Amino acid sequence: MALTEFSIIERYFAQPAAMRDPDVVLGIGDDAALLHVPEGMELAVATDTLVEGVHFSPHTKPGDIGYKALAVNLSDMAAMGAEPRWATLALTLPQADESWLADFSAGFFALASEYRIQLIGGDTTRGPLSITVQILGLVPAGTALRRSGAHAGDLIYVTGTLGDAGLGLRVLQQPLELSAQHAAHVMQRLNRPQPRVTEGIALRGIASAAIDVSDGLGADLGHILQASGAGARINLSTLPLSAAVADYVNHSGDWCMPLCAGDDYELCFTVPAQKCSALLDAMKSSPTGCTHIGVIEAAPGLRCISASGELITPRAGGYQHFSSDE
Amino acid sequence: MALTEFSIIERYFAQPAAMRDPDVVLGIGDDAALLHVPEGMELAVATDTLVEGVHFSPHTKPGDIGYKALAVNLSDMAAMGAEPRWATLALTLPQADESWLADFSAGFFALASEYRIQLIGGDTTRGPLSITVQILGLVPAGTALRRSGAHAGDLIYVTGTLGDAGLGLRVLQQPLELSAQHAAHVMQRLNRPQPRVTEGIALRGIASAAIDVSDGLGADLGHILQASGAGARINLSTLPLSAAVADYVNHSGDWCMPLCAGDDYELCFTVPAQKCSALLDAMKSSPTGCTHIGVIEAAPGLRCISASGELITPRAGGYQHFSSDE
Repeated sequence: MALTEFSIIERYFAQPAAMRDPDVVLGIGDDAALLHVPEGMELAVATDTLVEGVHFSPHTKPGDIGYKALAVNLSDMAAMGAEPRWATLALTLPQADESWLADFSAGFFALASEYRIQLIGGDTTRGPLSITVQILGLVPAGTALRRSGAHAGDLIYVTGTLGDAGLGLRVLQQPLELSAQHAAHVMQRLNRPQPRVTEGIALRGIASAAIDVSDGLGADLGHILQASGAGARINLSTLPLSAAVADYVNHSGDWCMPLCAGDDYELCFTVPAQKCSALLDAMKSSPTGCTHIGVIEAAPGLRCISASGELITPRAGGYQHFSSDE
Repeated sequence: MALTEFSIIERYFAQPAAMRDPDVVLGIGDDAALLHVPEGMELAVATDTLVEGVHFSPHTKPGDIGYKALAVNLSDMAAMGAEPRWATLALTLPQADESWLADFSAGFFALASEYRIQLIGGDTTRGPLSITVQILGLVPAGTALRRSGAHAGDLIYVTGTLGDAGLGLRVLQQPLELSAQHAAHVMQRLNRPQPRVTEGIALRGIASAAIDVSDGLGADLGHILQASGAGARINLSTLPLSAAVADYVNHSGDWCMPLCAGDDYELCFTVPAQKCSALLDAMKSSPTGCTHIGVIEAAPGLRCISASGELITPRAGGYQHFSSDE
């Protein structure tokens, strides 16, 4: 049966009434949604696209695609310290496959429900599989976390662990000796990254700069350094690694996995020394916590120091769509 | 030369400082943009995707694609009576072609500058050519034009003329006997539709319902009727037609062109009889004006009456991506 744009939206993307948000003046179904932005709040806006064959493989489950399309956008809100509230979904599909749509929307709404995100609009079109989500969030005026506030002496932290998603991608691409438990862990991290929304909000008033690790720690910390006009030193031995990635690095010596692989969606942030005790308090309730990995310095550039005190140069840049295969 | 995502944004999508908007607290370059929404205003949000081969041909000029990707979104703001303010751009490209990007961004910003729209963020990815724009606009709380407010007795109007873009598409698809002047007119209307933003804003407090004609008059007026729980009668002889479309209809008898072809991005709206003189005043300064084409009736359904008084049934529905070729 051919599905029209209208029946797709009604059948797969209408949220239950219990989820309704009083700040949504008008939701899906008109030419635009209408939102009420409470006084004293700034509106945070970000958008990210996932394209089949670039951001996920043709074998990725539709539920994972739906989840991740929202997760990477929530991660941008987390990196700003903003509370995500509303999303639009632009979905381009080769054909209207009902089972695909049911699984995709289940994955999308599993995460949307967790954070009470309201889907307020979108567009469904025919074409090569691609998903663009736009996320709208709120942050009290003046409290958003930016990339530009790091100063020499600030301590550098990351939430969670690094390199898991990169190792998951490697597992998909070539056979690796990995226990079933480790393989399951890294695939879960690749397919269902947990955006650090709660941690981002907790960092308001504490972090001097923040970013989410989408392109790799080196590249993303590099964005903080560039925006802040500073440099940094990080100690590889302090990087938080899961057992799977620690095993892999010990075995291969490939530090690029935690340093350069992207897609982890952890937060990397800087904290002035005098706020470190406030940070400990703020992170108490975080199941993932955060790890001190280095320090901001005045001299430009990123210096990675190995356990034996050697200076390591990570591969320049992170994941670059337009230079990766040209 | 390989272009990175960052250099693409800097080179082609950075707006001149003179365009800066005081309500943009933070623009392109962080994890999210930050906006100030003035008190008493509602935020209108819409998104539309254009896909190569579906919404435009591989031969469409990149400048026209850039223009139209924004125009169709501005048209959604027009249909709400909202003032468009900010846009994000998710651009998926097979490769970073500098000449294509220069032309595309010139087309996009030609229209953005006209309405002082600020580009506040986006995402560039590699993949089959596709453009998703999200538009954010402002409308004084409670004054937005919805689809659901039409009542029996309200008069139905459209701005501009109907069927031009459809005839332009037909010209691309098959040889037609059309004067050079008419061909140029319909191609301009197909490639560079003028969103009726000023007219939409002028209709606040006057129109009881509004929509933009993207899927065809029959389908889009049908959305108003469905949302309002009403029916309508329109007189074909009063449909506003350009000389090109009038010639075509006279010659072919094909009323489907002005009735069912989409992509005109005119406004279709309803006005209570007692507000018709206010409408005349409101439209005085509009170069395109509006035309009275029919009346809302209590009985459901859309009745199209020919010049000789016959009841004509237009093709059901408008342009449906997922059913058009299945």
